[in-house]
Amino acid sequence: MDWFHWLNLAGVAVCSISGTLMAYQKKMDGFGVVVLASVTAIGGGTLRDVMLDLPIFWIQNTDYLYVTLFAALATIIWLRVSVRFPYHYLLIADAFGLALFNVVGLEKALLTGAPMEVAIAMGTITSVFGGLIRDVLCREVPLVFNGELYAITCIIGGLCYAALFAVGLEALWCGIGALVTTVLLRFAAMRWHWQVPVFKQHS
Amino acid sequence: MDWFHWLNLAGVAVCSISGTLMAYQKKMDGFGVVVLASVTAIGGGTLRDVMLDLPIFWIQNTDYLYVTLFAALATIIWLRVSVRFPYHYLLIADAFGLALFNVVGLEKALLTGAPMEVAIAMGTITSVFGGLIRDVLCREVPLVFNGELYAITCIIGGLCYAALFAVGLEALWCGIGALVTTVLLRFAAMRWHWQVPVFKQHS
Amino acid sequence: MDWFHWLNLAGVAVCSISGTLMAYQKKMDGFGVVVLASVTAIGGGTLRDVMLDLPIFWIQNTDYLYVTLFAALATIIWLRVSVRFPYHYLLIADAFGLALFNVVGLEKALLTGAPMEVAIAMGTITSVFGGLIRDVLCREVPLVFNGELYAITCIIGGLCYAALFAVGLEALWCGIGALVTTVLLRFAAMRWHWQVPVFKQHS
Repeated sequence: MDWFHWLNLAGVAVCSISGTLMAYQKKMDGFGVVVLASVTAIGGGTLRDVMLDLPIFWIQNTDYLYVTLFAALATIIWLRVSVRFPYHYLLIADAFGLALFNVVGLEKALLTGAPMEVAIAMGTITSVFGGLIRDVLCREVPLVFNGELYAITCIIGGLCYAALFAVGLEALWCGIGALVTTVLLRFAAMRWHWQVPVFKQHS
Repeated sequence: MDWFHWLNLAGVAVCSISGTLMAYQKKMDGFGVVVLASVTAIGGGTLRDVMLDLPIFWIQNTDYLYVTLFAALATIIWLRVSVRFPYHYLLIADAFGLALFNVVGLEKALLTGAPMEVAIAMGTITSVFGGLIRDVLCREVPLVFNGELYAITCIIGGLCYAALFAVGLEALWCGIGALVTTVLLRFAAMRWHWQVPVFKQHS
Repeated sequence: MDWFHWLNLAGVAVCSISGTLMAYQKKMDGFGVVVLASVTAIGGGTLRDVMLDLPIFWIQNTDYLYVTLFAALATIIWLRVSVRFPYHYLLIADAFGLALFNVVGLEKALLTGAPMEVAIAMGTITSVFGGLIRDVLCREVPLVFNGELYAITCIIGGLCYAALFAVGLEALWCGIGALVTTVLLRFAAMRWHWQVPVFKQHS
């Protein structure tokens, strides 16, 4: 289960960076930056563990707290040394965090014996809620509501996982399949502004 | 306990519609609509189950997930076929969801052996928090803060339940009493703009 | 464990007052005031108990619910009788609530056998999240993000607790040390506008 641990650590680091970048962009200051980074990094996973009634991952293994703080500090130092940080990078970091957390949430739910529908929901919740709380705290319109493919990339990633799982592949390969699908879909959605027109447009 | 299950399903459907209508009104698009519908429909009950340390209702029974999605899709299709959806209906849907969830929250808390004060609080939390999260995500002033009788209708419904329960009625009738009381009070509050003047008005 | 119970009750009362004052300041009305007071008073502790997988403190002991309601009602009556309530008092009430909840969160986490890092995080979460939810619901920029020392006072208070604990002092004295440290730091930060310049200022 080693790769699983590293995957989760990578997702936490990436989302901590994304939270710190948002704090920078909103000209926040003080320790609130670290609070925002932490909420983005470990908020979704905390919600997942609470709902699955598992011990919270960062209480069991304090590595996650240190990775969150380290990633936030590294980003702060980089921003102090370097010139302006393009907003674009925030979206790329967010896409990787989305995909990594999706797989972690799927796996964790399946390990508790939850049915596949619930596992897909848990993957999406793990991915989406950290960023959702980040956006609410910054009083931004949540990214998840901006009309582009966002939450749906997690759900398609989850369906991909379910398909590979049904075919009989190992968890590792199901996870890699879901990860690649989610990242590529999200990048494509950002690049070509793919949208899901739910409501009829009233021009 | 069949009627209890149906009551909960009805509350979930109604709140999913209310979340979808809010998304429509705010000109949201994409899958964020479904996220908003889900949060409104199952957010309050999830919070209740987490606080009572019960298994989350929609993890135990995936019917709730399907009802949430189906109600959201049906609303989307209806809005695409029909003309403008009057804002008024959002408030009526919200009133029914409020009352249904109030009774479900009361019952569930009492079944865990919680005292009546906690059960009344749980009814109110189940009812109010789904809509509260919906309003926060949409960056609206939460309905619960708009000065009209809102959370208090749940509490009076809960007190009504407690009174009928003390008299010795069956749970079914206590529930119906609380449901009718909550809905009628909320409708009356909307119709005649009943307010609770907590603070002195500084004109 | 008597002093621990009173400490928690005092923190709850103080945060209920702080929530009611915020509702007054934002010209809220109706029972939403009591909802806001409750969320501020018991929101942080509820989150802590959920994450530590403990029974929620106000479900186990309904005193907390009554203290929350009584403090809110007392504040409402005082505001009706007295003249304008200066905004300053909100910040002072908030500082005491911050320090009281910090110690309660630390103690509770240590009692579950959590490591000291997690206990410090739990103290900060207990302290910061009630006010954070209050500010989000009121659509204010959260106090925790305003650049002044806020969350960091809790963390320094927590480190002080850890130091006194390492020296071998009893929990009571560790708690008093952390409490005094947190309150004094917060007052100093408010008086002299201490800031933590995380990002370079772009003038």
